[in-house]
Amino acid sequence: MKSLKERILDSAQQDLEEIETALVENLKPYLPLVSHIARYIMFSGGKRIRPLLTVLSARLCGYEGDYDKTLSVVFEYLHAATLLHDDIVDSAEIRRGNPVAHLIWGSPATVLVGDFLFACSSTIVTHTGHIAIIDTLARTHAEMSQGEIEELLHTKDATMEEGQYMEIIKRKTAWLMRAACQAGALLAGAPEHEVEALAQYGYNLGVAFQLVDDLLDYTADRHVLGKATGGDLREGKLTLPLIHALSRASTKDRSYMETIIQHEEIDEKDVDNISKLISKYGGFTYTRRRAEEYINNAKSYLEVFDSSEARCLLEDLANYVLERNM
Amino acid sequence: MKSLKERILDSAQQDLEEIETALVENLKPYLPLVSHIARYIMFSGGKRIRPLLTVLSARLCGYEGDYDKTLSVVFEYLHAATLLHDDIVDSAEIRRGNPVAHLIWGSPATVLVGDFLFACSSTIVTHTGHIAIIDTLARTHAEMSQGEIEELLHTKDATMEEGQYMEIIKRKTAWLMRAACQAGALLAGAPEHEVEALAQYGYNLGVAFQLVDDLLDYTADRHVLGKATGGDLREGKLTLPLIHALSRASTKDRSYMETIIQHEEIDEKDVDNISKLISKYGGFTYTRRRAEEYINNAKSYLEVFDSSEARCLLEDLANYVLERNM
Repeated sequence: MKSLKERILDSAQQDLEEIETALVENLKPYLPLVSHIARYIMFSGGKRIRPLLTVLSARLCGYEGDYDKTLSVVFEYLHAATLLHDDIVDSAEIRRGNPVAHLIWGSPATVLVGDFLFACSSTIVTHTGHIAIIDTLARTHAEMSQGEIEELLHTKDATMEEGQYMEIIKRKTAWLMRAACQAGALLAGAPEHEVEALAQYGYNLGVAFQLVDDLLDYTADRHVLGKATGGDLREGKLTLPLIHALSRASTKDRSYMETIIQHEEIDEKDVDNISKLISKYGGFTYTRRRAEEYINNAKSYLEVFDSSEARCLLEDLANYVLERNM
Repeated sequence: MKSLKERILDSAQQDLEEIETALVENLKPYLPLVSHIARYIMFSGGKRIRPLLTVLSARLCGYEGDYDKTLSVVFEYLHAATLLHDDIVDSAEIRRGNPVAHLIWGSPATVLVGDFLFACSSTIVTHTGHIAIIDTLARTHAEMSQGEIEELLHTKDATMEEGQYMEIIKRKTAWLMRAACQAGALLAGAPEHEVEALAQYGYNLGVAFQLVDDLLDYTADRHVLGKATGGDLREGKLTLPLIHALSRASTKDRSYMETIIQHEEIDEKDVDNISKLISKYGGFTYTRRRAEEYINNAKSYLEVFDSSEARCLLEDLANYVLERNM
């Protein structure tokens, strides 16, 4: 029997191929360096989940035009631009098993290519001539940048509470998936309740996606992940598993964890020790349960639609978010 | 008799006050840090020439609504965002006599606040609901980021020709002033030939503005400029005065200039020596003459409009670009 992933890749094969073509064709800056950097970040194993959400959302709402693939790339460009800037912000060194762009081309060019990708996204949405879609992108961009800043402000902040953390990941990750779905529905001219249902699907999916990312950062096979585990901790990012454990820990364990968090340089042993304590206080289980709740929520929003291949695929995608190992 | 600058400030006083208010009111991110950084770069002696261009262009085309001030701030936000990112790209230390933002708050926050200001600009133009205005901003953003990248690629490049340099400053500086004027005209619902005339006015003004900047970087009083002269040279930026001198210099002088350009650390004496050679080969005079040509061009585009206070003020602004000493 086929795995969930294989089933999704089979059903979405043609869409994914057309998305790849659109990603290349819409990226035609006149400077070769811009293409190099943009392609480096964009064609290094991205899952294309965001563009696929746009295409499937449009189809679920009966779209029959030919702008869906073009519009869908906006969400991958925006994602790529954010990654370029984030890796600078986080002083990251490795992404998906490769050195990050700013280590190859330097921060200056990387900042500017990120800016170019943001600009490119604006140009493409503007071509829809559809104010609500343009507005969705502008607001998403504003929310994302504020989410990133808020995350930065909470670097190594062991007093951050679950609620504050959830606000950050909603802005940082969920808004973009929400926008990808919403834009597809708007492009199809869907009625408001369908637009809203898909927006909510994307939003809940996005939160779950980030929570699973947080889990994988501690628990994934480092060869599958393409980088060492504990990367978030090393960058001073406290995520839900650790935040939950901190809230449950004994005074002694809590104070021990706080000491590690403040280490100038966090090594493998630190990551191991933190992982054990997260486990002890149920941080992984709790995060997993929260992710499942968001996925169930996401799927429930699809119920306003009649059953169809597109709806099935969106349900499969939601299930896959929980199942993925990278 | 009043100086040109005093006359402009008198005539534009109310507009400038309303622009200041709009700059503050439209900058309401929920994070205080974003305000701090954005205000730091924005309220440190900017001349507000870009927003003023929007307001005057709208008025010249008969605009009587109340969205002109709000729309105008977009061009100051975009300008500020570019400054934040540029100062990181150039590793600058001083701007307008103050330490640059990334030295106070660090590069990560500065990159992200730049992103937020870009996003803010998109949100404001989207509220016009006017596709042509939205499109103007998106294209301008794309041109600017490519201009910046092209400039970066020509760092310390003594083989850069005048034509290549002009392409860079058109993208980097002229497009934004063009967009500021064009957006004002579009907001007023002006006929195409008026929109185009104001776009051309802004474009030519922008080129002249940058050329005068290039001159001032070598020739201004350092106390008026708020930083040491020769800043462009120190950052490896070759501008028109030097490019022209290089193209005219004897083999010996050219090779001497090339050596200085390649110095790891360029000191005051290097700047002095380069300045003298630029002077010897007429680089300052030539740049000044080119700036005057662009200003004359800019003013000629205003001739399609009947004479009015707004037209007078736009002419005065053009003259002031040549006259300013900071």
